[in-house]
Amino acid sequence: MSDLENIQQELAATKAALAAIKGEDATVSPLAPKTLPHILPISGVTLSAVTAEVRYTGRDDVMMMKLDSGSTIAGVFTKSSTRSAPVLWCEKALSQLTESSEPLGVIANAGNSNAFTGSAGEESTKAMAVGTAEALGIQPERVFVASTGVIGERLPHQKIEAVIEKLANTLDANGWSQGAAAIMTTDTFPKTASTQCEIDGETITISGMAKGSGMIAPDMATMLAFTATDANIGQAALQTLLNEGTAISFNAVTVDGDTSTSDTLLLGATRKANHSRIEDAKDARLTDFRTALNKLLQDLAHQVVRDGEGASKFIEVKVTGAETDASAKKIALSIANSPLVKTAFAGEDPNWGRIVMAVGKSGEKADRDALTIKFGDILVAEKGWVADSYREEDGAAYMRAQDLVVSADVGIGSGQATVWTCDLTYAYIRINADYRS
Amino acid sequence: MSDLENIQQELAATKAALAAIKGEDATVSPLAPKTLPHILPISGVTLSAVTAEVRYTGRDDVMMMKLDSGSTIAGVFTKSSTRSAPVLWCEKALSQLTESSEPLGVIANAGNSNAFTGSAGEESTKAMAVGTAEALGIQPERVFVASTGVIGERLPHQKIEAVIEKLANTLDANGWSQGAAAIMTTDTFPKTASTQCEIDGETITISGMAKGSGMIAPDMATMLAFTATDANIGQAALQTLLNEGTAISFNAVTVDGDTSTSDTLLLGATRKANHSRIEDAKDARLTDFRTALNKLLQDLAHQVVRDGEGASKFIEVKVTGAETDASAKKIALSIANSPLVKTAFAGEDPNWGRIVMAVGKSGEKADRDALTIKFGDILVAEKGWVADSYREEDGAAYMRAQDLVVSADVGIGSGQATVWTCDLTYAYIRINADYRS
Repeated sequence: MSDLENIQQELAATKAALAAIKGEDATVSPLAPKTLPHILPISGVTLSAVTAEVRYTGRDDVMMMKLDSGSTIAGVFTKSSTRSAPVLWCEKALSQLTESSEPLGVIANAGNSNAFTGSAGEESTKAMAVGTAEALGIQPERVFVASTGVIGERLPHQKIEAVIEKLANTLDANGWSQGAAAIMTTDTFPKTASTQCEIDGETITISGMAKGSGMIAPDMATMLAFTATDANIGQAALQTLLNEGTAISFNAVTVDGDTSTSDTLLLGATRKANHSRIEDAKDARLTDFRTALNKLLQDLAHQVVRDGEGASKFIEVKVTGAETDASAKKIALSIANSPLVKTAFAGEDPNWGRIVMAVGKSGEKADRDALTIKFGDILVAEKGWVADSYREEDGAAYMRAQDLVVSADVGIGSGQATVWTCDLTYAYIRINADYRS
Repeated sequence: MSDLENIQQELAATKAALAAIKGEDATVSPLAPKTLPHILPISGVTLSAVTAEVRYTGRDDVMMMKLDSGSTIAGVFTKSSTRSAPVLWCEKALSQLTESSEPLGVIANAGNSNAFTGSAGEESTKAMAVGTAEALGIQPERVFVASTGVIGERLPHQKIEAVIEKLANTLDANGWSQGAAAIMTTDTFPKTASTQCEIDGETITISGMAKGSGMIAPDMATMLAFTATDANIGQAALQTLLNEGTAISFNAVTVDGDTSTSDTLLLGATRKANHSRIEDAKDARLTDFRTALNKLLQDLAHQVVRDGEGASKFIEVKVTGAETDASAKKIALSIANSPLVKTAFAGEDPNWGRIVMAVGKSGEKADRDALTIKFGDILVAEKGWVADSYREEDGAAYMRAQDLVVSADVGIGSGQATVWTCDLTYAYIRINADYRS
């Protein structure tokens, strides 16, 4: 080979190394599901999406969902003290929700989160609710509003009002996938899930969509999720089921420990199914439904983690032996949010000392001399020291997998919890630092 | 230029871009002090350092400090539930400390933290204490032991025992700088500070050293600090002064929110000064001393942040208007530990929306519609929205500085706090991910 050819080859290799570190080669998360799920329509639910060019062009950016008359709805929202005008609107709407023959509406836009926008933010939210209410022939208080995108910029709600009529006229029971694509911001793939179960011998369907790829970038990556079922469940019971399911799904995942000002999760129930209405979340007929709902919520929450900004690994963190379940969850989140643990995973480094550190810093009770740590099925540490059987090369080989399980038993009691996270990579820095220079 | 020359030039530029991102060009932190401070000796304190090759070769890695008879000592340690054997030893030694005519000793090594090493860890710590005690002619309970470095590997304490005699024979009042260099791990520069003040008309000296460059990598970057004064202050008062000073210095800095299993801060007082002994921390004669001590502790703590792994910016976060001072500190740490805030600083992005997010997620009371945010003297946001006077280009220009101040007034009460942190860069990922592949 000539000098020129040699140097050309070295240049190509150096450029590839630079691109790989900066993550420029990843247009879709490497952890994305390989196939898109088939979304089952829900009797009584129709959806539509159009382009309003709030911020993006050449793609849908507003979504509408309608729940037929007789429906009810439950919601869970961000606890942030600086939460957005749409979140405050939804919290109020939910607290005032009454039984009514009127349908329910949901309107959501991507590109502008209408957060930290002062009194103008309330005006924009109200305009979206009123416009949707008029188009659907319902009271504005029966419309739930969500916005995701940049923070601190006034939402040009006129652009959304201008497309509401079109949204209302194109509602379709098969609109789930189109809706899921319309609410994406920094997401690299749309997130949907669908499942069936039985209540009293009747087949029940649950479907849903989500968006989010940090947990959370208030700039562009708020978590939103809209789910619905045809089950005949009363509002209070539905809310209890959603709270329980959220605790082990959306509230058990973390990308960077940051919390959005706009996180919104809704679960509508159209009550079209033929079983008698269930008013108590403890009703034994809900066993199968509860399992299916929790699985669907976990599926959507895991997809959010799999689209975590810059993620190259999906990590399950299981903590057992804690004083209580709540204590176990705090320890698990301490591990899952530790930058040192997350960078070790990015580097495929079986650095179990950082797990010990993260257990220790959680502030929760743990017995250092009874601590057991496992990577997958590999026993790494026990009784306060590295296990006799552990070989570093086994740990290193395990770390090369894309999906990882880390277990820690803290040797105190029987409390347990599982949370999910992703690694912390160069690409996370690239996505969030914006390196202006 | 020929094709060959063109391509050679492009190759050089691409290699430089790759090296810059990976931080390979930074051997000393860009935030390091430009000149080393002059360390004043403390009457009654001598130090020495030698090489024991615990892990490193070709450099000192063990340090000894002796405090003459009549001295007392105060200490603050990591709260981690998985804290190391040396930390447990020091806590016990401090709790049992009595007035004695015997001197006090400190022995510290770098390269192995003796953390999570089971009962072998206790054995190694005891061996270091007993060896030092014999060399100094004191009881082992009067020796304070600290270790920093890798976790989970048995400490070869025989290597340290073999050099203790040499350490004891080379103790020198001017040994501070050599000692500071001996305890470095991932540090890129040694950290020392020295100051003088007055008690009752007498000139009092305080000097100290610290190490640490994450807050903290249990692998290699534990925070250790050893400080001393010739002031004549009783043990209880000294401990109170150290606790107060730690709250606004070492406990007000964060690099990555991770806490080491080995953090140890000691303050010795040799009582050689000619003023009468002070037994009460509230004694009015301590006003000047307290100010000087706090400034010295802050100086050392800031040096730890300035050596933060991969740091390119030093950031002061000031929170005012909170419900209480404790609430203000929680909000300030929520801002300072947010990966999204820290990556924005790395990218010189005046992303004030992330400050709003971090205030909101802190869990502390804040009035979204009274929130004020400033970058330096630039008013960025007020009354729940971007300030009329704010121009994005002003914020962007401010962000280019190396030292930054971010202020947030949360509009609730009069609680306030200041914490210090650094940015989150590609180099942090490089240093901690170890990217094996």
